[in-house]
Amino acid sequence: MTSSKGLEGIVATQSAISSIIDDTLTYVGYDIDDLAYNASFEEVVYLLWHKKLPNKEELTQLKKQLADNMSLPQEVLNHFKTYPINEVHPMAALRTAVSLLGLYDKDAEVMSDESNYEKAISLQAKIATLVTAFARIRKGQEPVAPKSELGYAENFLYMLSGKLPEAIEIEAFDKALVLHADHELNASTFTARVCVATLSDMYSGVTAAIGALKGPLHGGANEQVMKMLMEIGSEDKAEAYILEKLANKEKIMGFGHRVYRLGDPRAKHLRDMSKQLTTLSGEEKWYNISLKVEEVFTAEKNLPPNVDFYSASVYHSLGIDHDLFTPIFAVSRISGWIAHILEQYENNRLIRPRAEYNGPGMQKYIPIEER
Amino acid sequence: MTSSKGLEGIVATQSAISSIIDDTLTYVGYDIDDLAYNASFEEVVYLLWHKKLPNKEELTQLKKQLADNMSLPQEVLNHFKTYPINEVHPMAALRTAVSLLGLYDKDAEVMSDESNYEKAISLQAKIATLVTAFARIRKGQEPVAPKSELGYAENFLYMLSGKLPEAIEIEAFDKALVLHADHELNASTFTARVCVATLSDMYSGVTAAIGALKGPLHGGANEQVMKMLMEIGSEDKAEAYILEKLANKEKIMGFGHRVYRLGDPRAKHLRDMSKQLTTLSGEEKWYNISLKVEEVFTAEKNLPPNVDFYSASVYHSLGIDHDLFTPIFAVSRISGWIAHILEQYENNRLIRPRAEYNGPGMQKYIPIEER
Ligand SMILES: CC(C)(COP(=O)(O)OP(=O)(O)OC[C@H]1O[C@@H](n2cnc3c(N)ncnc32)[C@H](O)[C@@H]1OP(=O)(O)O)[C@@H](O)C(=O)NCCC(=O)NCCS
Ligand SMILES: CC(C)(COP(=O)(O)OP(=O)(O)OC[C@H]1O[C@@H](n2cnc3c(N)ncnc32)[C@H](O)[C@@H]1OP(=O)(O)O)[C@@H](O)C(=O)NCCC(=O)NCCS
Repeated sequence: MTSSKGLEGIVATQSAISSIIDDTLTYVGYDIDDLAYNASFEEVVYLLWHKKLPNKEELTQLKKQLADNMSLPQEVLNHFKTYPINEVHPMAALRTAVSLLGLYDKDAEVMSDESNYEKAISLQAKIATLVTAFARIRKGQEPVAPKSELGYAENFLYMLSGKLPEAIEIEAFDKALVLHADHELNASTFTARVCVATLSDMYSGVTAAIGALKGPLHGGANEQVMKMLMEIGSEDKAEAYILEKLANKEKIMGFGHRVYRLGDPRAKHLRDMSKQLTTLSGEEKWYNISLKVEEVFTAEKNLPPNVDFYSASVYHSLGIDHDLFTPIFAVSRISGWIAHILEQYENNRLIRPRAEYNGPGMQKYIPIEER
Repeated sequence: MTSSKGLEGIVATQSAISSIIDDTLTYVGYDIDDLAYNASFEEVVYLLWHKKLPNKEELTQLKKQLADNMSLPQEVLNHFKTYPINEVHPMAALRTAVSLLGLYDKDAEVMSDESNYEKAISLQAKIATLVTAFARIRKGQEPVAPKSELGYAENFLYMLSGKLPEAIEIEAFDKALVLHADHELNASTFTARVCVATLSDMYSGVTAAIGALKGPLHGGANEQVMKMLMEIGSEDKAEAYILEKLANKEKIMGFGHRVYRLGDPRAKHLRDMSKQLTTLSGEEKWYNISLKVEEVFTAEKNLPPNVDFYSASVYHSLGIDHDLFTPIFAVSRISGWIAHILEQYENNRLIRPRAEYNGPGMQKYIPIEER
């Protein structure tokens, strides 16, 4: 059976993790709007991994486990420090470092539920440390050790800047993490599932997913959006810029989606945050340029903004380096990757589709002298 | 549209690289039997990448490019040497090292055809050096530098042992590489394509594929087959061993296939090589146990041996450590991964299927105190 290109519309698996129906996204039955307004990132992590929201005790325990697991093995930090960190994309460094973590986990190959849950906690904790250590090391700063009393979002911002963040920054960052945590069979999650359906280990699955998220058609888009906003530079230049790109048949990053045709339900939250944070930082122009781009683009093409469009100005306003936007996406989405990897293990079958051959017909080998 | 589990029978893409029809496998229209008898691995690499067999000059050039690119960057070797190499699976080390190679390639993110072809050569060349360096370093031996005048199979065996191999060893190993080079949309190749369909880079795609190949339902099976042969120990114990496993509903590694139902056309070549090489090494017992396992298993289940079954005794007879069997699979299959990555780039669309939600219905967030 021949499918549409890119497996569009093909159901590749059942899943109890998230669902997309029209423009509604739910995590385990909770509307993303409900979670964005009410839940912390740790609650969402718990929800994705356990299929229910935690009670107080469960949440306290998860927070403690995450905080306790944030420190990197010294050897990993040593390797990391000697990577050519100023010359590489942070996603390439992250891909390598997560794979490396597996070499320093003596249970990397153990496939029991308990061991996999330990790996889940360890990876979710350490990815924050890796991304922030990367950001500091390349500026010649020492990595900052996590504080065990801080929540995940606060710890991340603290390890990044070395300063305790403001309440509004924590809230915004936490919400961004909630919004990015899972998204059904997106390309990186699907990569992870195909990888581990061979019964490969969790480090292999997460490493593969990081590689996929890195691409500009997927998580890499948020960095590209910021690049575009900088190139545009001011609101009055937005229209000409977008029209020229479209005339050249270039894609505008941060718009369009394989599944959402009506609109991405996450975008409005990020739009609101962008307005609020750019106002606070005194750089409303990034919000204003974004609005203008949206207006011009959507008048030309019937493609609404996706999760990556307004997250660019949000992260920029939080003082985050632009090439860290995609790694931050990974810091959140790893929770979903892990949920999907665990679900794949629970009821596994090799994921192995077919290709339709469209190459040359039967040929006969002829000796090299006669070619 | 809901597909069968594991995307069985779903056509995920068109491809001009290899085709499977009934029990016939072709690479670009050449029957695998024809290639196994006649072609060298380098000719097959050229075929997969250029969709035609090379003439003399083209083959000489490819061989030279591969030999010239085998040396590892000193930094990669330095990192590699400090990995806990005696405690990790070589596939985990290989996954990490290939990702690391990307950090030392200043053109890692360049997406032009020329740059991707350079990466292809570099990866195909360096994977042999990585696997052999791993094997030596963990035994306390220095890595052996490649010799530029040797062919790929010969260089591999030379770098592994430090001695120039016998003609029959070269021939057998070369044929094993030819047989493993590509296999349509197998799980690791599909992982690579899903990954790079986000327009991520080649290092990400190959790293992801290594993670997938590592799993015991895929490339990891050849190592497991050898483990089983060792556990059985002698021909007379084979029947009881297999029947007990089957009674316990365990899978027997090296049998069964998603696509081939009649038989895997590669198995007979490996069976013949196993007979020849075990006779030469004076350890016919591995061949005899294998034959007996095949006889007992296929009488019980209508599932013929696959590529991994007889490759175990072949590699063992070549004096190769058992946990290097899957890395050797990678040394060959990387040629196919790269062909598929290049084909994906040529006519790309994001690979993004859907999941069918089977979790809880709509829920309303309730404050944590009330849970
Ligand atoms: C997300 C995305 C990959 C979905 O892709 P898809 O379902 O495969 O859709 P296609 O790429 O086939 O696009 C369908 C059509 O819309 C156009 N289109 C899609 N997104 C576009 C964009 N951002 N800018 C301009 N045109 C776009 C395509 O060019 C294509 O037009 P055509 O039919 O005339 O060739 C795609 O919309 C895109 O590349 N967006 C930009 C990158 C991005 O923001 N990614 C993050 C996603 S969260
Ligand atoms: C290769 C493989 C993953 C293909 O898997 P698949 O198409 O998903 O097939 P399934 O695992 O669904 O198997 C179908 C049935 O055959 C059985 N089966 C398949 N391979 C088997 C094996 N090697 N030993 C025992 N039973 C096997 C399954 O248990 C299943 O039985 P059921 O219908 O009673 O549950 C599978 O045959 C396998 O696991 N083989 C062993 C690992 C191996 O050699 N892999 C290398 C492949 S090159």
